Amino acid sequence: MSPDLELIQGFDPRTGEPAGEPVGSLSLSAVKQAVDEASEAFEQWRGFDRAAALDAIAAKLDEHVDELVETADRETALGRTRLTGEVGRTTGQLRLFSQVLRNGTYQDTVIEHAEGARPDLRRINRPIGPVAVFAASNFPFAFSVAGGDTASALAAGCPVIVKAHEAHPRTSKLTAELVLEALADVGAPRGVFGIVFGREAGAQLVQQPAIAGVGFTGSARGGLALAKLCAERPDPIPFYGELGSTNPVIVLPGAVSARGSEIAAGYAGSLTLGSGQFCTNPGIMFVPEDAAFLDAVAEAVSGTVGAPMLAERIHGGLVAGVEELAAVPGVRLLAEGKPGEGPWASTPAVYVVSDADFRANAEQLREEHFGPVGLVVTYPADRQPDVDGVSEGNLTATIHLDSENGRDVAAAREVLPELERIAGRIVFNGWPTGVAVTHAQHHGGPFPATTAPAHTSVGSAAIRRWLVPVAYQDAPAALLPAALRD
Amino acid sequence: MSPDLELIQGFDPRTGEPAGEPVGSLSLSAVKQAVDEASEAFEQWRGFDRAAALDAIAAKLDEHVDELVETADRETALGRTRLTGEVGRTTGQLRLFSQVLRNGTYQDTVIEHAEGARPDLRRINRPIGPVAVFAASNFPFAFSVAGGDTASALAAGCPVIVKAHEAHPRTSKLTAELVLEALADVGAPRGVFGIVFGREAGAQLVQQPAIAGVGFTGSARGGLALAKLCAERPDPIPFYGELGSTNPVIVLPGAVSARGSEIAAGYAGSLTLGSGQFCTNPGIMFVPEDAAFLDAVAEAVSGTVGAPMLAERIHGGLVAGVEELAAVPGVRLLAEGKPGEGPWASTPAVYVVSDADFRANAEQLREEHFGPVGLVVTYPADRQPDVDGVSEGNLTATIHLDSENGRDVAAAREVLPELERIAGRIVFNGWPTGVAVTHAQHHGGPFPATTAPAHTSVGSAAIRRWLVPVAYQDAPAALLPAALRD
Repeated sequence: MSPDLELIQGFDPRTGEPAGEPVGSLSLSAVKQAVDEASEAFEQWRGFDRAAALDAIAAKLDEHVDELVETADRETALGRTRLTGEVGRTTGQLRLFSQVLRNGTYQDTVIEHAEGARPDLRRINRPIGPVAVFAASNFPFAFSVAGGDTASALAAGCPVIVKAHEAHPRTSKLTAELVLEALADVGAPRGVFGIVFGREAGAQLVQQPAIAGVGFTGSARGGLALAKLCAERPDPIPFYGELGSTNPVIVLPGAVSARGSEIAAGYAGSLTLGSGQFCTNPGIMFVPEDAAFLDAVAEAVSGTVGAPMLAERIHGGLVAGVEELAAVPGVRLLAEGKPGEGPWASTPAVYVVSDADFRANAEQLREEHFGPVGLVVTYPADRQPDVDGVSEGNLTATIHLDSENGRDVAAAREVLPELERIAGRIVFNGWPTGVAVTHAQHHGGPFPATTAPAHTSVGSAAIRRWLVPVAYQDAPAALLPAALRD
Repeated sequence: MSPDLELIQGFDPRTGEPAGEPVGSLSLSAVKQAVDEASEAFEQWRGFDRAAALDAIAAKLDEHVDELVETADRETALGRTRLTGEVGRTTGQLRLFSQVLRNGTYQDTVIEHAEGARPDLRRINRPIGPVAVFAASNFPFAFSVAGGDTASALAAGCPVIVKAHEAHPRTSKLTAELVLEALADVGAPRGVFGIVFGREAGAQLVQQPAIAGVGFTGSARGGLALAKLCAERPDPIPFYGELGSTNPVIVLPGAVSARGSEIAAGYAGSLTLGSGQFCTNPGIMFVPEDAAFLDAVAEAVSGTVGAPMLAERIHGGLVAGVEELAAVPGVRLLAEGKPGEGPWASTPAVYVVSDADFRANAEQLREEHFGPVGLVVTYPADRQPDVDGVSEGNLTATIHLDSENGRDVAAAREVLPELERIAGRIVFNGWPTGVAVTHAQHHGGPFPATTAPAHTSVGSAAIRRWLVPVAYQDAPAALLPAALRD
């Protein structure tokens, strides 16, 4: 390794001390080589039994779940229960995509026989080419090396090169080794999967001519910088970024009457889950002006405890953001939880502001706080809640209503068109932090939630990001893909 | 009108003289007003009987076909036969999308009932919002004011503001008036359709906060400038641009033996159709080294006659490009047709180069020439044709083969993976210049053919550009869109 290469050191968030040996970043020539190998593997991977390969990766990860969880817990402090569940979610995703491949509808085939002057036309989806995947900090498995972007791209027929996240290098390295082992076991072509470490290697990766698309989950700043590199290539390529979301929640008066304390408890749980480090964290909640309900929220949040955050930088960002939030006119602290343990631990907190003050300072107040910190916006209970001022782009929006209450239903109907415009998923009487990995899921939304509002990064439709159509006009049967023959 | 506004003057390509009165460009405040009206119309248009509205627009245009053709012929010199056909294609497109709406599958609904811990999740497509459409020079109807982008966006539920092309202002104005009349007749909300004139108005249009997506057909330079404006907005929006394509054609030796003169004639016809002003014009053709076949190509092209081009600028661009092409080492003129009449008329021409010389100067030789000018690349008949060096992004690629000839079939099979990688549509034993408007069509391709390779601008799938999914989690039936209820 040349001496100017970066060393990626993971840290134990519980102590702030280094966690295991560092992993070296890749040189430009090593990045180029990984991309060359991915390119060479492309045609063979298109024809490979990819469903079997995805199943093999899932089985290999399941087999090593203890080792994976132990490594990740040391680097992320997310806890064994959560991390074990996340490995299961990750292998479930891989198996979902092997089902998608066996089902075949992802190919979206259309066959039109010649008629009159119209030629015979048949269309099918093909893989876009080698893909770069940028792993997220907050899901060391499900949105990381073998996560949803990787699973969906491999399923589509695209070789994948992952840029590992700096917050969990050893987890990334171990996962990559297991993926490579599983692929070798089933005889997959060399180069179908690769991994690079280091920001500079990531920037170089998206600029390689053979890279045909990019998946990214992370901060708006990092995502926009990579999006710019993709847009400024001689041949711009699609950049599918999931960047940030404040996930507005609207609590209607009937819901408060019917189950106020349940909502308060659910909110505190959703806000502080995983130390608040979810892209679907409920950042802004609109509630009727109701002292008892605010008390219930305050009490629920006071009962929570913070936890180590993923990285010193993430903790520092939260602390700075909260200081700015607290200083905005009209904003006051409603309640705080207990601080977590360790040098980078969060302290859950909820601030409150009137809807008039919220709209007056919306630019500042709609900023995302990555962590267990929420803003409650109160509106007069005899008026419609007004979400003007929240971000125009969210992964989710949530409505709590009493479905038996006509006024609640009418109010929900009134606000729905606006929520549909600004969010990819509308949750009713629940919390946004759980994201089911299914066919109907849409984990997306207008900018800044994502850079590609027509696409999802969770669920089976995520494969569409890596597919492009090709139409065959008057093709001899022998030259048609099998799925397009009569 | 304020005095600093641009006057958009159309010209008669047959004489170079002004054609009718100029049309004034729009001021920034008028652009803003059009966008405000489009925004206000959005919700009402989502719920409107859009199929009836599209049918009404189609009927209105058909009713005025003579007036439309006369106006367009004066501004484009494309001839009454072609233009009458193009109005038919345009109204056919509008009716295709009214069928798409009545069929309903464009909503791509998925319903998953709750199961175990998994919530009830239902997904449906919704319109992205008000859309800007940039009309093309070369199709004054089918890719212009009421063309495929407008039809598909209106169908999706998006209000549309068209930026008219400078080459046919009066045709654009007349079409817009007819569209507005038809929409008023069926009681569509004011603001659902608008039109702006002038480049500056177009640039301002894509920067308006309420514009949610852009469709564009035109030059790479113009398209990339607008794509940049879209990417640099505070909230970047999707830009669907169709920019340029050289549409490689590969003629295999067996095809030459079986029907060489038919291929030569077909090539000359496709190359010179509409004065070569098609994005699917066959710009580069690979043929075996076969003197008799080259003679047949030369003879066929010599028998063609040029025609007035759409605009002085387009004619100037072709002349300059051909000068550069002719000066590349190894390139020689194979044949010329007769010059057309008028100041901006093209002269059809075909140049020839060996495949070795082609690859040595590929950067220059793969430039698109918008007009009836082609490059023939010869390859040794005992070798595979090698398309290395052609552009990486094309709307089409074409193979001429003798399907009964085993060597041709093997050669086609060999080159197909590469063609699938670089082109959106593969044509067999035909020519790329006809583009059927159907469900299976894919009129797209990697950059620079388009800026969004997963999407088509022709055929029913074009509606997908203007749709984004929204998922409903555990929604009460009363609040679900009708199509998502049990």
